Amino acid sequence: MVLFSGIFFSVNGLNTSMADTIENPKETCHKKQEKKSPMKTVNLYDTTLRDGMQGENIFFSPEDKIKIALRLDDMAIPYIEGGWPGANPNAMRFFELVSQTQFKNSKITAFGSTRRPHTPVEKDDTLKALISCGVGTVTIFGKSWDLHVNIMEITLEENLAMIRESVAFLMDHDREVFYDAEHFYDGYLDNPEYAMKTLKSAVDGGCRTLILCDTNGGTLPHDIEKITRDVDKALQKSFQEPIALGIHAHNDCGMAVANSVTAVRCGATMVQGTINGYGERCGNADLTAVMPILRLKLQMNCCSLDNLKKLRPLSRFVSETANMTPLNSRPFVGHSAFAHKGGIHVSAVMKEARAYEHMDPVLVGNARRVLVSEQSGKSNIKYKAREMGVAIDGDSRKHHGIVSNIKELEDEGYQFDVAEGSLKILMEKLTGQFQPHFDLESFRVTIEKDKERPCYAHAMIKIRVGDTVEITAAEGDGPVSALDNALRKALTNIFPDLNAMHLVDFKVRVLEGDAGTNAKVRVIISSRDENDIFNTIGVSEDIIEASWQALADSFQYKLSLQNQPTDNLNT
Amino acid sequence: MVLFSGIFFSVNGLNTSMADTIENPKETCHKKQEKKSPMKTVNLYDTTLRDGMQGENIFFSPEDKIKIALRLDDMAIPYIEGGWPGANPNAMRFFELVSQTQFKNSKITAFGSTRRPHTPVEKDDTLKALISCGVGTVTIFGKSWDLHVNIMEITLEENLAMIRESVAFLMDHDREVFYDAEHFYDGYLDNPEYAMKTLKSAVDGGCRTLILCDTNGGTLPHDIEKITRDVDKALQKSFQEPIALGIHAHNDCGMAVANSVTAVRCGATMVQGTINGYGERCGNADLTAVMPILRLKLQMNCCSLDNLKKLRPLSRFVSETANMTPLNSRPFVGHSAFAHKGGIHVSAVMKEARAYEHMDPVLVGNARRVLVSEQSGKSNIKYKAREMGVAIDGDSRKHHGIVSNIKELEDEGYQFDVAEGSLKILMEKLTGQFQPHFDLESFRVTIEKDKERPCYAHAMIKIRVGDTVEITAAEGDGPVSALDNALRKALTNIFPDLNAMHLVDFKVRVLEGDAGTNAKVRVIISSRDENDIFNTIGVSEDIIEASWQALADSFQYKLSLQNQPTDNLNT
Repeated sequence: MVLFSGIFFSVNGLNTSMADTIENPKETCHKKQEKKSPMKTVNLYDTTLRDGMQGENIFFSPEDKIKIALRLDDMAIPYIEGGWPGANPNAMRFFELVSQTQFKNSKITAFGSTRRPHTPVEKDDTLKALISCGVGTVTIFGKSWDLHVNIMEITLEENLAMIRESVAFLMDHDREVFYDAEHFYDGYLDNPEYAMKTLKSAVDGGCRTLILCDTNGGTLPHDIEKITRDVDKALQKSFQEPIALGIHAHNDCGMAVANSVTAVRCGATMVQGTINGYGERCGNADLTAVMPILRLKLQMNCCSLDNLKKLRPLSRFVSETANMTPLNSRPFVGHSAFAHKGGIHVSAVMKEARAYEHMDPVLVGNARRVLVSEQSGKSNIKYKAREMGVAIDGDSRKHHGIVSNIKELEDEGYQFDVAEGSLKILMEKLTGQFQPHFDLESFRVTIEKDKERPCYAHAMIKIRVGDTVEITAAEGDGPVSALDNALRKALTNIFPDLNAMHLVDFKVRVLEGDAGTNAKVRVIISSRDENDIFNTIGVSEDIIEASWQALADSFQYKLSLQNQPTDNLNT
Repeated sequence: MVLFSGIFFSVNGLNTSMADTIENPKETCHKKQEKKSPMKTVNLYDTTLRDGMQGENIFFSPEDKIKIALRLDDMAIPYIEGGWPGANPNAMRFFELVSQTQFKNSKITAFGSTRRPHTPVEKDDTLKALISCGVGTVTIFGKSWDLHVNIMEITLEENLAMIRESVAFLMDHDREVFYDAEHFYDGYLDNPEYAMKTLKSAVDGGCRTLILCDTNGGTLPHDIEKITRDVDKALQKSFQEPIALGIHAHNDCGMAVANSVTAVRCGATMVQGTINGYGERCGNADLTAVMPILRLKLQMNCCSLDNLKKLRPLSRFVSETANMTPLNSRPFVGHSAFAHKGGIHVSAVMKEARAYEHMDPVLVGNARRVLVSEQSGKSNIKYKAREMGVAIDGDSRKHHGIVSNIKELEDEGYQFDVAEGSLKILMEKLTGQFQPHFDLESFRVTIEKDKERPCYAHAMIKIRVGDTVEITAAEGDGPVSALDNALRKALTNIFPDLNAMHLVDFKVRVLEGDAGTNAKVRVIISSRDENDIFNTIGVSEDIIEASWQALADSFQYKLSLQNQPTDNLNT
């Protein structure tokens, strides 16, 4: 019954599955579970903001990084690695912002290396920066593989001293210290004795959490299994105190998730990874796969079922922030991850979901797509309309029309789940309830450039409000800015309240490659007023047309809010 | 020595590693190998054209499918599953074309199901179509999971008869028959006795190759390992003749490759998968990862080292044919798979490749790339300059100047690791070697909109080439398109070669999320000529200014290539 109602709710898209009242995934996961032992705890360590940014095309501004960190904090990820202090201005700025930001659940960590060869720790810039950046938890990496020590042209003993002394220095400054054993698995395969010595040096320095790294990503699960077990056994034998192990896996063999899960099954209690698996080369272990596997398949305690439901939104938020197209086929969180194609009868899936799905999509905030039937689509719309205060009468043909209209637009590239301001206006239009607060008569935007001088953009706009016609002109940093300024100038003459509204973000995404500058673009504008942030959207082959749609919607939407509360519209 | 020369050649991009003269991967793979036993043979079974086409947005015409099949044949993939005869016209047409096509190495196979319930085999349309399509090898799937048998509302015995009789019917028609045990792992976990009975029915019907399918993709490697071993043991006990096992894995947990490799290590001798892992939901096991892992990491005989070098071109060909953007981070074959970013690495990579790479990229037809980025050091720049044929003398102060210049620009939002065209021009400018092929005098871009009519954009541009001044005008889908058309019109009058160059992608990213339409935008333009694809970049608060920078660089870069080979600049 519980399973069924979980499915039922996920079918019509309301994320209120019974699942969130159940702490035992055996009943929420379609697949039968065997493991019965009490829940093992695994600490997640997110390095999206540091190792993730090593990925090609992945760039986050310090402000982006704070936004992402706050989302991870909201999901209670224990550790969030923010960057390497001193390595670049981006990281420095980030740690400045961290000191001004309140985190409820997560610890922000700083990353760096062991001290330079033949340098006293107190004179080492990296270590000093790790202290001065002001966070309480630091992770340093050191060499495990004698091959690398030889490349550095230092003695094997000096490397051990670098590890031991660097850890001790940070411990002396009351930092929580994690030790990343770089290239550990390769090093262990080449020279296990020395690889173990490096770990012991970190423990001698005072570290109690050692992360085994498959830095080149070339190790296969059966080697991860053997080595992790051996190391765990050896460490527990050598030291009285328990030593915690972690895994840091790269995806060069497509094994990062498998290797992480394998290491956890062999004793590791920390997993380092990134959201969407972003990272250098083929990326890092994808936490959006690691989390549901540990929590739902192996019943390990790595996050609550309620937080797990934020997984898909988190994945989307990170890809939007990185401006990377979300991977449809991404396990658990991808748009296609629970999309059923030909052959399967909806009734059969309804009858026995576990026959066709390995788990309930709702548990990770995703949804089954073959079951977005007219019925569920309609109830979706009714739900949204109610939420936004748009009256939709009982006529189900009307609902049908709205659903198919929205589907058509989404096929064209509109994405209303991230632009509810435009969705509200669209629903009002489709139900004949839209009352425009202004009409466009015309605009002209001109951009001029002479020789090496920067571009100069100005706009003229003519709008009508009732019988009043306003014509204004303005300049700006580029055509959209000029258009925004001109429209704002025209409207604030009539609606002074608009002074409270400001654009806070402007995102452009090219929808289809291979069409050069004729590609369709999607513009999403975020606006803020005293109560709220709301998004509007436009799609066109012409970036100005798309920007205009989003811009006009943002003003129309703001004006439509004058007489109603705006809270929770876009949460 | 051999290893070193392999590396050396791959470094400067010539894909002529010594590796192709060596049949022993122990010496060609960076990572030390332990396994010493004689090579096990694994039969690859490609289902890109059938299961791969179940993927969202994946479509191949019958002619496309033949082209892909010929590429697979050229790589000597033993089996190529072409489709389900009778299921759709696409498959019918494909098998017509197959009968007119010469395959040197591969067998084309047809896919279908066991007979309908309560239907004599000789009257069953699916089975008849499998015979009439004319190929010698057929694969049929049947139900392994009693849950599914119940959903079909037939008896468990009827399902066994359907399997046995269908296999026997195809054997009687002298077909080579493979049996896909659908949902086998889920079925076995629920009801092992019945799951085994279904396999035995296939063997009783005459089949000697049974493929265990993880149809829902929810099974983890440790379950795959246990079940595959148990099944293998049980079958060898029950039958005198050897029964071969295969694996068909889906990627819903990101484990399809791990599960396939695990099954092979536990006795399976066939792997079913797809190129690039295309397939329903999260896809199938990606053969572009399975092949190098089996061949290079586990020294199993699944394809020759020479054929393995065709892997990256094959992956690109399939994604081009499917019109899917190639995944940069795809293991082994992705554009980023062997891309090095951090400055620390690069100097060392050139010294000792296996320290930073798990294998020689040349072995899979890929190449090492060095990315110049915020982290980059002098050695990256020197390496890049050499790669691009920009002369930089030994003066290390000059190198330092270039690095700090690039770092400043990257702080402003430039990202040269994805815009090598602009990087080359920048390095030429910084070293006084840049010779512009044209100079901008001025341009004007105007966008007009009236009421609800779409925007109309047109551009006027005036450029100087030596003493010639060209002034042209053009319109376009938006301001950038209009500007591109006008510039192209002006330049092609003087440089007809430019007709060979086309913009293929146009990416826009807003850098600072908090400045509304005054935000800085980064524009990256990808252009293609007959030899290559190259990227150029522009950054400004004005999207037109940023687009102009990238646009102008793309034309300057293309013109700078006229007198030099373009290969390997951006591959």
